[in-house]
Amino acid sequence: MLLRRLVSTTSPCQQRLPPTIRQLLQQNPESSSSGTHTVVSGWIQSIRKQKNVSFAVITDGSSSKGLQTVLLKGKDDEQLLRQLTNGAAVRVTGQLVPSKGSGQAVELLVDESQNGQIQVLGECDPLTYPIQKKALTPEYLRDHVHLRARTANVAAMLRTRDALRRRIDNVFEDQGFTHIHTPVITGNDAEGAGEAFRLSMVDNHHPAASDATQSPVEDRIEFFSRPAFLTVSHQLHLEAIATALSRVYTLSPCFRAEPSQTSRHLAEFWMLEAEWAIQSATNPYNGVEEICQFSETLLRESVGTLLASEDLQLLGKDMSEVKQRSLSAAFEGQPRWARMTYTDAIKELDKAPSSANFSFQPKWGAGLQSEHERYIAEQVVKGPVFITHYPASIKPFYMRASDADQGRTVECFDLLIPHIGELIGGSVREERWDILKRRMDEAGLLSSEEAGYEWYLDLRKYGSTPHGGFGMGFERLISWITGQENVRECITMPRWAGRMLL
Amino acid sequence: MLLRRLVSTTSPCQQRLPPTIRQLLQQNPESSSSGTHTVVSGWIQSIRKQKNVSFAVITDGSSSKGLQTVLLKGKDDEQLLRQLTNGAAVRVTGQLVPSKGSGQAVELLVDESQNGQIQVLGECDPLTYPIQKKALTPEYLRDHVHLRARTANVAAMLRTRDALRRRIDNVFEDQGFTHIHTPVITGNDAEGAGEAFRLSMVDNHHPAASDATQSPVEDRIEFFSRPAFLTVSHQLHLEAIATALSRVYTLSPCFRAEPSQTSRHLAEFWMLEAEWAIQSATNPYNGVEEICQFSETLLRESVGTLLASEDLQLLGKDMSEVKQRSLSAAFEGQPRWARMTYTDAIKELDKAPSSANFSFQPKWGAGLQSEHERYIAEQVVKGPVFITHYPASIKPFYMRASDADQGRTVECFDLLIPHIGELIGGSVREERWDILKRRMDEAGLLSSEEAGYEWYLDLRKYGSTPHGGFGMGFERLISWITGQENVRECITMPRWAGRMLL
Repeated sequence: MLLRRLVSTTSPCQQRLPPTIRQLLQQNPESSSSGTHTVVSGWIQSIRKQKNVSFAVITDGSSSKGLQTVLLKGKDDEQLLRQLTNGAAVRVTGQLVPSKGSGQAVELLVDESQNGQIQVLGECDPLTYPIQKKALTPEYLRDHVHLRARTANVAAMLRTRDALRRRIDNVFEDQGFTHIHTPVITGNDAEGAGEAFRLSMVDNHHPAASDATQSPVEDRIEFFSRPAFLTVSHQLHLEAIATALSRVYTLSPCFRAEPSQTSRHLAEFWMLEAEWAIQSATNPYNGVEEICQFSETLLRESVGTLLASEDLQLLGKDMSEVKQRSLSAAFEGQPRWARMTYTDAIKELDKAPSSANFSFQPKWGAGLQSEHERYIAEQVVKGPVFITHYPASIKPFYMRASDADQGRTVECFDLLIPHIGELIGGSVREERWDILKRRMDEAGLLSSEEAGYEWYLDLRKYGSTPHGGFGMGFERLISWITGQENVRECITMPRWAGRMLL
Repeated sequence: MLLRRLVSTTSPCQQRLPPTIRQLLQQNPESSSSGTHTVVSGWIQSIRKQKNVSFAVITDGSSSKGLQTVLLKGKDDEQLLRQLTNGAAVRVTGQLVPSKGSGQAVELLVDESQNGQIQVLGECDPLTYPIQKKALTPEYLRDHVHLRARTANVAAMLRTRDALRRRIDNVFEDQGFTHIHTPVITGNDAEGAGEAFRLSMVDNHHPAASDATQSPVEDRIEFFSRPAFLTVSHQLHLEAIATALSRVYTLSPCFRAEPSQTSRHLAEFWMLEAEWAIQSATNPYNGVEEICQFSETLLRESVGTLLASEDLQLLGKDMSEVKQRSLSAAFEGQPRWARMTYTDAIKELDKAPSSANFSFQPKWGAGLQSEHERYIAEQVVKGPVFITHYPASIKPFYMRASDADQGRTVECFDLLIPHIGELIGGSVREERWDILKRRMDEAGLLSSEEAGYEWYLDLRKYGSTPHGGFGMGFERLISWITGQENVRECITMPRWAGRMLL
């Protein structure tokens, strides 16, 4: 029988990839695996060749530390040695032994007389390889984005994204949240800023959208029977699920078709967003504080415990001392981050010395400019600060009107970070059907059928409950903790106006 | 001082949301928290009112089980009782006590004489509430997608997505993988099928894309200076990162502008994709088996341990017995899933009795039709089966040519599941620059500058290493384990041709 022959008796649980270099380095050098036959695949990070022995550092990208490898030269292998250059892919077989050198606990001894072996899987021409050991500028690496993860800093940034994501997941799980995959394509524009990418219409006869431009305009239709955009925020969709699962969050891509070329904006970025039924009081007035507290706890428990990681230590070497001090003070020095109302922030700005030299005059009722935010966080508070209760007139329709001042302000906050600016924005959402309807009417969201926001209002009709949440730009968070100046260095493959390689 | 007043001495680590119902139910009823003052927020799932006592089940969506609540009636509260209807949002204060009833270990005793309290946060009119207790069809719930997570089955599906995601993360972490956020917007079309959504051009003067249709065509430009599509797969981008981090994966949204209205296709769906440097042998011939083994281990360790969960038990009640048996046999019965080459599969199909009644004649060199896949998985193997080594002529350019037959077949596989069809597709990728270049030339991918695939070929120039990976449709996996017939019930908010609510 054909099948019986194929079925093996091996237990499927034994199917494991061999340990990565990170996993090998975490082993106790005195453990039983020490001295045993070990196979490692990776790339040569550096090599020093001597007469009878060569020293190579092999990396597989799993750790900022490579594996120190000692190659004892056996028979004449000049040909092989010539192929052992930086960037070459190799598979090395040897024995893991306690290291005689400093800087690592174990090293790999490759002794041909003991069946040790080094094999070149893919050569790398040192003359043409674009990723040379010399310092490469961020701009050069953006032009070689398909290769830039091979540099130590970009690799450390990518591993940090993942490590942070896992820690964030744990905090949310611990507090009873469910992660939700909210949609990317939507008919709504949550921010109402008109900066949503729109999908092309498709050929009526050949619904493959990529042919759309080849068809005459009159033959084209909306694929979804209505205009479709890329989401600018997952908040509204999360709110719908929060009316059923109570506590939900997502880390998902968001998109803004804004022409901005600043160091803080991307056309495609990742946003961590959460929505939950406010627990702290029946009166939603305390909701803002609950959301501030949750955000602070989230950052302290995820970032705070990650700062000592090898990858952040590596990236920290390039960070200015003032930024380093500011970062560690936020997590180690301050027992609790500051809170300040928008109204008090305006008072502080009014008191600012003329040396502050604002281009824009601070004024109650106007938004805080970047220079104002920096002054408050860097000069007044000297640390992270939650600015709460902005005027309703400058905030979106969904924010809850404050009971305390008859809706002149809304139950919201922005978290400002020194040298970064706004990291998080959040609010209690208006849970009262009649008041939300009035605000949506004023914003013109219910007048046209095409807008399609009725479902959002409908959420307040059946068992509506006080709820709120926040959104945090994931690349800005990465920028803060890695010290990378530009968010273009904080994402795998950055996209901005005029620029999308691969 | 303004700030000093705001700084509290509370330790930030104490800021915790109160436990969810799921967390309360997991507590030992004999534990110290039993009998203590407990506040629960949620919605009434069902209520039975008697003269001096009412019994309500409260759900907060954290668990398929609600919290049994006993409301001891105090002073006259007819008004309150009228508001306690299915779907109403309530906050309940009482004591958690060991339950006298069967079916739950603890219940919440709300005794007004003991400061117990039930408070209605949001009423729910039983006459107009669209989510009635009676069975609602999938089609009806798709029309009310903003409310459907309030049904037990959709809530269980959403929690299952998250639980599975967490388990998958753990398997990958355990085996040394890094999760990568690959881009959604891209200039490439990995499958070459021309089914990628394209972004609209934007107004040259007002770069907000949503205005694009209002501008004359000649004023419009590409936002990224070149045509931009939504990715159909993250494979190529993952491969770029795998050349640096060795083992990478992503669970990310993918998009296909196909007019399909089947139960297995969505215009927006989530795909789990992984790429890694093949470890099992220097000869990549064994690569396919390594990828099959990894996929099987991943599914066994993530799904296998989840089948007993409350949510999957709940969803399993609606599953046909034959599907249930097939699902548990895959994870409990078979020691190792079957492997079969495409060539052997064609032989099996040739031997099929005429009762198989194929619409398409099986033929070496043609793709396997859905009817063929089902016959192999359901009739021949009676379980999951990896079909390997398809003809090169029907597979994409990036798959590695088999050494064994001079490239007539490629080092690939599809995992077929009874009643589901293809769940996973994977392959070793062509790591040899010259052979890949020839295949890309043949596919016309290097002829036009606009296609922009040079970077992909370039990955093979510097330290190229044997590598491979797979892609798994996340909704199909959910469909398999939950028994939901249509993938539209396996995602938060489904989109397909002609349909995108909210």
